[in-house]
Parts: sequence; C-alpha cells; structure tokens
Amino acid sequence: MTLVACIGGGQLGRMLGLAGLPLGIDFRFLDPSSTAPASAVGELVVGAFDNLAALERLAVGADVVTYEFENVAVVSAERLDALPPARALELGQDRFIEKKLFSRLGIPSARFGSLADTGLPAIVKSRRLGYDGKGQRRVDALEEMGEHELAEEFVAFDRELSILGVRGHDGDTRFWPVAENTHRDGILRVSRAPAPDAPQAEAEVLLGRLLDEFRYVGVLALELFDAGGKLLANEFAPRVHNTGHWTIEGAVTSQFENHLRAILGLPLGATDPIGPSVMINLIGAAPPVDELLRLPGAHVHLYGKEPRRARKIGHVTLVDALEETVVEAITVVERASDG
Amino acid sequence: MTLVACIGGGQLGRMLGLAGLPLGIDFRFLDPSSTAPASAVGELVVGAFDNLAALERLAVGADVVTYEFENVAVVSAERLDALPPARALELGQDRFIEKKLFSRLGIPSARFGSLADTGLPAIVKSRRLGYDGKGQRRVDALEEMGEHELAEEFVAFDRELSILGVRGHDGDTRFWPVAENTHRDGILRVSRAPAPDAPQAEAEVLLGRLLDEFRYVGVLALELFDAGGKLLANEFAPRVHNTGHWTIEGAVTSQFENHLRAILGLPLGATDPIGPSVMINLIGAAPPVDELLRLPGAHVHLYGKEPRRARKIGHVTLVDALEETVVEAITVVERASDG
Repeated sequence: MTLVACIGGGQLGRMLGLAGLPLGIDFRFLDPSSTAPASAVGELVVGAFDNLAALERLAVGADVVTYEFENVAVVSAERLDALPPARALELGQDRFIEKKLFSRLGIPSARFGSLADTGLPAIVKSRRLGYDGKGQRRVDALEEMGEHELAEEFVAFDRELSILGVRGHDGDTRFWPVAENTHRDGILRVSRAPAPDAPQAEAEVLLGRLLDEFRYVGVLALELFDAGGKLLANEFAPRVHNTGHWTIEGAVTSQFENHLRAILGLPLGATDPIGPSVMINLIGAAPPVDELLRLPGAHVHLYGKEPRRARKIGHVTLVDALEETVVEAITVVERASDG
Repeated sequence: MTLVACIGGGQLGRMLGLAGLPLGIDFRFLDPSSTAPASAVGELVVGAFDNLAALERLAVGADVVTYEFENVAVVSAERLDALPPARALELGQDRFIEKKLFSRLGIPSARFGSLADTGLPAIVKSRRLGYDGKGQRRVDALEEMGEHELAEEFVAFDRELSILGVRGHDGDTRFWPVAENTHRDGILRVSRAPAPDAPQAEAEVLLGRLLDEFRYVGVLALELFDAGGKLLANEFAPRVHNTGHWTIEGAVTSQFENHLRAILGLPLGATDPIGPSVMINLIGAAPPVDELLRLPGAHVHLYGKEPRRARKIGHVTLVDALEETVVEAITVVERASDG
C-alpha cells in the first residue's frame, strides 16, 4: 500500500483523503485536534505542528509527506522532504519576498514596499502570513509602519480571479480553468469556474513561471486581481486551495486527486471542466442538509467541524446549473450563515 | 452527526462511506474481517453476520441500518429495522419465489420450475442465492433435479442489461440509465451506460413495479436479458450494485449517494448521465495504477483488497472517452487480470 502523510488534518486533508482512498492510498495526518476533519479518512497523529516527535511519527513509513496549509515551518518541511518543495513554502511565507519574486519573474503585481513606494491609499499587511484577511488594514494617510509590515498599493480591481495548476516530477504541467472569486470580510464566499471571459492563457503563463521556478511538484494556486483587463498577482498558496473545490465535481480530475498523483509520481489527470461550476462556502453555520440537497444538482460537502463564527464548515458545488438555482443556493446558504 | 450502520464492510460499504462522508454522515460496518475494505471510512465491528451481540453493537445509536449484500439473514434485517425493507431481501433470496413475484407483477422472465416446465436446454440453479455464477449448470438432457434446485429456461439472449432505481420514504422514485453488461465466467467485466438503444421506458416500468410492491426505500437493481428486443427479468438485488458503479463519475448523483439519501429520508438527487460511461472491473489482480491513470479520463477505484483469483479488487470508469481509449483500458485491465 501507498502511504501519504499530511501535515494538517483539516478539510483540505479530508478531501485529499476522499480523493486518494479510491486510488488505494492510505493516509496519516498530523493535527493538534483529536477531532480533526481528516481523521475520518486516515490515521491521526495528535500533536503540535512543531513537535519533532510528532512529525517523526507522522512520517515513518510514508511514501511522501505533504501539507495542507502554508504556515508549516520550513525546517519541518525540509527535514521530511515534503512536497510541494519547501522553497515555495518559504518564499510564500513572507509577503515582501513573495512580491519580489513576482517582480523578478515578470509577474505583474500591485506596487509594494513602504507607503512612499505604494502611494495612498494602501493596504498595510504583516509581512508574515495572515489568514483570511486577518492582520490587514487600509491606510489613507501617511503613518509609521511596523517593522514587520508591508504596504501594498490599493488596487481598485474589477474582480478577483485565481488559477490552479499542477506539476509532476517529470515537469508535466496542467492548469484548471480560471475561477472568479467573491470574498466578504476577507473570507471566500463564492467561486465560479470557468470565469466569464477569463484571461486563461495569460494566467497560465504567470502561474507557469512560478511552477517552473520552484521545480514545483503538486498543486499551486495563484490569486489574481483583474483590474480593467490587466492581471495583477496577489499571492500564491503552495497547496490545494478553496477556489479549486469546484474541481471535485466540475472537472475531469480534481485538484485533490491531481495533487496526490503529482507528489506520488503518477501520471496527471485531465483538468478539463465538465460544465460551468459554482462553489459556495458554508461559513459559520450550515443550513439543514435537506435544504441543500433539494437543489437540483447540488453536491454538498460538510467537513465534520463544529459550527463557529466565520469558520468554513463546508461547501456546496453546482455544476451546469440554471442561474436561478445558483441564486437559490446562495440564498439558502446566506440565510444560515452567521458570518 | 448522522450515523449509518451497514451489515457488510466490503467494497460496496466502502463506496457508501466515500459518498456519505461529504454529507457529514458517520459510518459503522459489521464484517467478519478485520481488514474489511470499508474500515478505511468508518468504525468497524468485527464479527459474524449472524452474531447477535455484534449486530447489536453495529446498530447502537445508528440513525438507520442498511446492508451491502443480499445474503443477510432476514431476521437480522427485521430486528434492526434495516432498509431496504427486509421483505425485498426475503423474496430475493429464493429464486423460485423471486420468479413467482415477477410473474405476479407482470414482469416477463424466462420460464421456470421443473425441467418439464422449462424444456431443454435449461439452466439449473440452487433456489437459494448463488453468487457470481456459482452453483449454476446448463442441462441438456432430462435429469433428476435436487430438492432445492430450480430450472430456468435457457434464453439465447442478445445482451444483458440492468437498470437501477432509487425510491425515497415519500415514494419519490428515480431511475438511472439502463446499463449494458458483459459477463465472463459468471463475473461482471464491463458495464456501459447508457446502453445503446436502451429500452429505458420499458425497463423503468418493470423496476417500478418492484419498487412499489416493496414500498421500497433505497437502491434496487434489476438484471434483464434483452432477447430480440424483448426484456426478460433475470434477478433483482436489493442493494447498490456493481452495474451502477459508473454512476460515481458518470451521473449527477451516484447510486451510493442516492441510497444514503433515500434511507435517511433526504431529498433524492438527479440521476441524469453526465456522459456515456464505461466501467471495467479489475478481477483477480490489478495492473500497476500508473498504467490506468495514464488513460485519459480514467477514474480508478481500488478497494484495498488483497489480489486473489476471480476476486473483484477494483474498477475503472471512463466518462465521455474515445472508443479507442476504452479498448486500451480493457486491454490493460485484461492483461493484468488472472481470472
């Protein structure tokens, strides 16, 4: 049997497990919580992410170690030879270094640096990773920034897009269709893929530069702003990504399956869309499951997490649905959501 | 949380679990083997199927009890209020009673009874359930039949078909497209759905009579012979069925998900096909997984079973594939198969 070990046992780990079990893959997860969502689909090592003994227990006998969040300590990833490669993790953990990398690779992004570099208004963020919009503020007047902060030009973008790609050990690379994403309070609410009038080729070029730079293995997500037709890179995430959940039912091969195929050195699967897809996150609380299942063609994913304000506890995907069904789905979800 | 208990922890239980976890359902399985395939997706009670204490442990706290094979003791199913209803199980366990039921419901089938009833040649089967062609023989001359045997007219059919349907507590009924099935040595090898020139409406009428007769809840499969355009019922199976595995990727809602929706009183999902599908069983031994994954659009399902002669250890489904890819897939599978 093949064993995949994963740092983190949240919903992304759970969906990796659901995608991998049919391929005959066994899973082991490391998570501080004994009720981690992924425990339903594999062995769970309960421990802190920086606990060396726990990391050893996670990795023993594994064919490959991966991770499902980008705050993994780079030294841990390196010690375990984790995939995607630790360098992607490292460069993505510091927004300043990430933006410099974009610049070096010719990937357009908003101006960044000090407030003098960006002009006003600007968004000031901590250089180290925030999460779901935490640790960001808009700044409209010059002020003294903290030592570990970074300013980014405020971009009046038209919409937020993302593109996901996967690269195998042999360099084989595939891209899923660009998704259009709607956030509120810094939390992803809805993804639509393929995005209408998507700049697919251009987005693939930008993500392809990152994949090649890292000699990447696995799934990589790149968030983009579309400002008047011009693409600006916002950030990348070296892992499976919420804006790719639609691929479970909406693409021939899901991001989860292709991530596993890539890190295990297996041939990659086709990333073609099956039909237009809409993914809606369940935030804070979920409606009764029958209200969701009543929607024609709705695919419901609950993560086995306790409801809690602003927490992602599940999602619903509609493929090839009528727009009126999409609107109804969003309405049902929003009525139940508390955040 | 919702808990579904299942008598049997084989691949059908495993696929029920994979379909149900995203709906937030927890699973518990009863199986004599401590390495039962379904143990990857739920709690496993190790015990004989007729062990009363084990059956009690299986059912405690469960919202509903179901089963994944049709040799479950009727008394056990009744005691646990299992769904599908025990009467379907009971009538299906005796081929003579099953055939009389077909007759009473106006469902055409081959002549049956004694060799005098059927004429020659005939197929003589044990009345009680056989499995995958075991316990059947062709008879070309009059002979004395065993006390527990039944003769069936030998039908020179053109092809084997099956139809699967699902019925909810409220009587809501859905049918998947008819599949065309190829057996060898009594073991299903390939299912194609929708079957070319399928007698969909007629098949739905026949299966609908059974669903209504049993006030059925869950998925019911009906195997049919197509003899010169005339449909003859062969047997029914009160459970999810190998000829419906293509529905995982090939239909909007799979047989596994809809079985769970039905027995839990949830709204049923759409059964429309996504595209033409071909399912190929992996019998005895599987080719290396990369040989399968290299096939464009192949969806691989391994059940976590040790290879053994004539054993179903997995399957591959191709949706919307070129016929040359289908032929290649069958070739790859057959080369590895030992049975």
